[in-house]
Order: sequence, then C-alpha cells, then structure tokens
Amino acid sequence: MKALYLQKSLTLKEIPVPVPQKNEALVEVKNAGICNTDLELVKGYMGFQGVLGHEFVGVVEKAAEQKWVGKRVCGEINFGCLECFYCKSGLSHHCPKRSVLRILNQNGAFAEYVVLPIRNLHEIPESIPNSSAVFVEPLAAALEILEQIQVEPNHEVVVIGDGKLGLLICQVLRLTGCNLRLVGKHAQKLSLAESWGITTHKLNEVGKHKVNIVVEASGSPSGFAMAMQLVRPRGTLVLKSTYLGNLELNLAPIVIDEITIVGSRCGPFESAIRTLENNLVKVDDLIDETYPFSQALQAFEHAKRRDSLKIILDFNE
Amino acid sequence: MKALYLQKSLTLKEIPVPVPQKNEALVEVKNAGICNTDLELVKGYMGFQGVLGHEFVGVVEKAAEQKWVGKRVCGEINFGCLECFYCKSGLSHHCPKRSVLRILNQNGAFAEYVVLPIRNLHEIPESIPNSSAVFVEPLAAALEILEQIQVEPNHEVVVIGDGKLGLLICQVLRLTGCNLRLVGKHAQKLSLAESWGITTHKLNEVGKHKVNIVVEASGSPSGFAMAMQLVRPRGTLVLKSTYLGNLELNLAPIVIDEITIVGSRCGPFESAIRTLENNLVKVDDLIDETYPFSQALQAFEHAKRRDSLKIILDFNE
Repeated sequence: MKALYLQKSLTLKEIPVPVPQKNEALVEVKNAGICNTDLELVKGYMGFQGVLGHEFVGVVEKAAEQKWVGKRVCGEINFGCLECFYCKSGLSHHCPKRSVLRILNQNGAFAEYVVLPIRNLHEIPESIPNSSAVFVEPLAAALEILEQIQVEPNHEVVVIGDGKLGLLICQVLRLTGCNLRLVGKHAQKLSLAESWGITTHKLNEVGKHKVNIVVEASGSPSGFAMAMQLVRPRGTLVLKSTYLGNLELNLAPIVIDEITIVGSRCGPFESAIRTLENNLVKVDDLIDETYPFSQALQAFEHAKRRDSLKIILDFNE
Repeated sequence: MKALYLQKSLTLKEIPVPVPQKNEALVEVKNAGICNTDLELVKGYMGFQGVLGHEFVGVVEKAAEQKWVGKRVCGEINFGCLECFYCKSGLSHHCPKRSVLRILNQNGAFAEYVVLPIRNLHEIPESIPNSSAVFVEPLAAALEILEQIQVEPNHEVVVIGDGKLGLLICQVLRLTGCNLRLVGKHAQKLSLAESWGITTHKLNEVGKHKVNIVVEASGSPSGFAMAMQLVRPRGTLVLKSTYLGNLELNLAPIVIDEITIVGSRCGPFESAIRTLENNLVKVDDLIDETYPFSQALQAFEHAKRRDSLKIILDFNE
C-alpha cells in the first residue's frame, strides 16, 4: 500500500498492508487531516519514524468482531494496556504503558490502511461526511476543556491563538454562552471567527482587562506570557499547547493571585461526534484545501504555511 | 509604644501609638507569631520598611463600633477597597487596590498596638488561648487548600516541606481521611508529624509512586521539581509557597499529563477559628519557644534556625 513515511524526511512509498492482531481492526482510510503535531514530528519532535497521521476516517475492512466490518469509523489515538489503574478508570490516554498512533510505536493513518484496536473505534453516523469526520479528534481535544473545568455562561473567556485548534476551541466555548474573545495574528482567521459571532483582537489590541478563563492555544512563549497577564486572580489558565523546550517562569504570581493552571490534551470522541451530528460547530469553514493522497507532499508544504487552515488528504482517487 | 521596626535591619524602638480612623480599631497586641514571610521581609522581600508581624491576637482598645471594645480578636491581613469586583465577591484578599498588614503600606503587629479595619476583625472564643490564636492566620492559609480543591477520603496526598506551614497543612488534610504522606528533611519535624499518625519520608526515601495531589510547601525549586515528579496524570499540584526568582520549567508534561496547578494563599479565618475551637488540630505542638517582646531580636535569631518551629512573642510582661 502507499504510505506517507517519515524517516528524517517525508516520502510517499510502498509498504506492506498491516495485519490486524486479535482485537484489532484493519481500516481502509478515506480522509485524513494534517495537524500541527504532524508538522512538529517532521521537524523531529519525539524522534518519530514511520507513518504519520492520526486525524482520519475510514471503513473497517477486517476485524475479528464481524459487526464492525463495513462500518465507517474514526479512532482514538491512545492505546492503553487495559490493566493499569488509568485504563480501569476510563483514562487510558494516560496509561503509562500506552502507545500512541503515529507518535509512540504505532504507524499512523497517512496510508491506504491503518490498524488499531477495536476498542478505539467510534462509528461515524451517516449524516457526518468524511470531510467533517476528520475533525472528530481535534474537536474532542477542544471539548476536553469542558471535561476539566466549568465554563459558566457569565464567564469572560479569552482564547489565545487563531490556529486550527484555537478556532475549534472558540466554536466549542461559544456554545456555553460565555463572553468569548479570540486573540490572534492572522487577519483572515480572525475574520472567520468574527463570522461565527466571536469578538476578536489582534495581538496589540488586547488591553489589560483580566478575565476568568484564558485558553493558551498558540504554543508560543509569548502567548503563555500574555495568558498570565490576562488571567485574573482566582482565574484559570488552560494550557492547550505543548511547548518545545523550557520556559523561564516566575511562579510567585500563580500563588499570590491563586491562579489555576490546567494542562489539557485528548478528549471525548463520542461528544465530538454528537457535536458534529447536531451541527453545533462549523468544521467546513476550517478546511483550507483537499489534496489527493498522491499529492501528500504538496499538501504538507501547504499545511506548513502560516496562513493555512486544515489540509485534508483524500484517498478516494 | 515599643515596636519591632524594619529599616534595612530590625530594631526595637519607640514609635507613636497609631490612631484609628473611622471604621478602624486600635488593638492591644497580646501574642504574635513569627512566620517565614517575616524572615523573608527582613532579607529584603517586597522592600518593606516598617513594623513587621501579621499573626497576632489582641484586645480591642478603641473602635467606633462600641461592641468591639474589650473583645479578644485576631485580624485578616488584606485590606480591600470594598468597591471593586473582588471585594464585592468576598475575595477582598485579591483586591487590586488592597493594602496588606506589614507587607504593603501597613504597619504590622510586632508592636504594643496595631490598627486595622473593624471589618477585618474576628472574635476569638474564650476556649482558645492566646498562644493558639496566633495560629489562626497560618491555619486559615492551610484550610484555603480545601476551599480550592476537593480532597477525597480515598485520595493519595503528599505534602512536600516539613516547615510550620507544611505541618499545619498536614494536620488539616489529615482530617479528610485521605492517605497522607509528608516529605521533609528535618528528623525532629518528621517525628512530630509521625506522632500525629502521618506517614513521613526523608527526601531520599520518597520513591516514584505517583499520587492524586501534591502540596508544595517547601518553597525550594527542588521541592517543585519533586512535586512535578510525584503528581500523577490528571492530578493536582498545589503551590503553597512563593518562590524567589524564576524557575526553568518544561510545560509539556503539564499538558501531556493534564496536570492541574493551583496557587494558594490566604484562607478563611472563621473556619480556622472553628477548627481550633473543636480541637481538630494540635497547634501547641508547633510552638518552639515563647519570648517576651523585649527579647524580640533574640526571638528572630531563633526563628531563623532551620530546625525551629513557631516562635511566639509575648506582650504580657
């Protein structure tokens, strides 16, 4: 099968179709999305070698459990051990022995076929097209914020970072009825958010008004510094991006102002599917361009551009 | 009146008795406790000049509201503006215009008399002796943790730092029925905690087992690093100490493990008074020595010793 393989650099090459083990399914990939972590992996993050890609939708071709065969599915990317405390508490994405699709010991979904445990599959309802289903994983990550903290309708909330994840977070937080503002530096992305009814600011227009909740989704140290400036005493700062390297940090304001900092990562797939099914978020707006899989390298070049939104790989050639 | 005055160095000197304004009370100090922040202020923290001391108990000598005169009281140290959002939300200790007893623009309680707003006073019940009442402020700070996070009876909790505050925190958290351990480096302080039924570890005996909640009360960068090691995915790290200067911090584990970091400062006085009244904590055990106020400089020398616990100044000479 054709696969987009990372080994120092990216190449589109032939590799064997993977063979599902007991409890696993072989999924024929239909659509896949390129996310920022894929771009980071290409730059060397985690030292990963193999097939990239974890935002995908496909059709089950083989599985020991027959009822799955022919089903359209997306899949959770963390594969837990099933036996540890975390797996038994429904927190398998924190399993210390986990493997992670296309990050840790597992080939990803930028290939004609991908294998993953049956327990990681989620069926996609008919009403959700493939081009929307690829957003289940990042939408779940946005929803994770609401699994972790209570966003009240009267809260003032600022999201920092107008990238794909920041925009999804805005769409999700908007549903709480909170007083929401987005801070970013890309005029086009900010006007997209404006079209959803969200107030936006360029970086230099933010002001000093402090708010209940700040979500840092820019992944830049300056974004973190701004978040610390904008979160009010007893407020909450949600860290939604990982940062490369160390930050110099003065912890005293966290104690004096009794700030809560919440790290946030993968989220609930079923909620994301419900949210899409009920048309509560507009993911179509976030699609920048769709490339046939044979042009995956060009698609990656496009995804690297700072003004790009979601780039989708289409396997239905 | 005699006052312990900080101006580069500490001196015991005569200054005028302060005059209470409308809404203020003049309190004759009976007992006062030396806390670590007092020691930090002597080293130059906040550049404070004036009378130190904020853990105290005294008797109201003058107040416009007659009902307070003659009452035995302690007092909250943050004086809010009464008009801002925080003051109106019961969070006056976060008022951006606040002054703070002996830290910000206010003389403290290491003097024969101290003045503070009547609204900051809390009456001390007869059953609580003066030597215990001086613990109301730090005990409230320990209780603040339970205002901010839920400590469940089945939680595993580690407190790092066996100083006065760490020991008070242990006593408070012990009441939740949680599985509690204290990590410290002073044999005598650890055996005190053992005498309360708390499991203790020296620094090199901690192991790698991760727990639900870690409370960092050592104030040292190595304590913070240990806290990050011991908090489990989806766990909570309570920062109970301020840190001088910046720390080099890798934020990625906070995001990947979805850690929550909670800064925690001043707490609820009435709860602290109830806790003392009901004999739920043993503060007597924490008193190292009591000095007459005339020997306040010797008392400070004693308080600086790393093995010291609470040093009390007694004004009843």
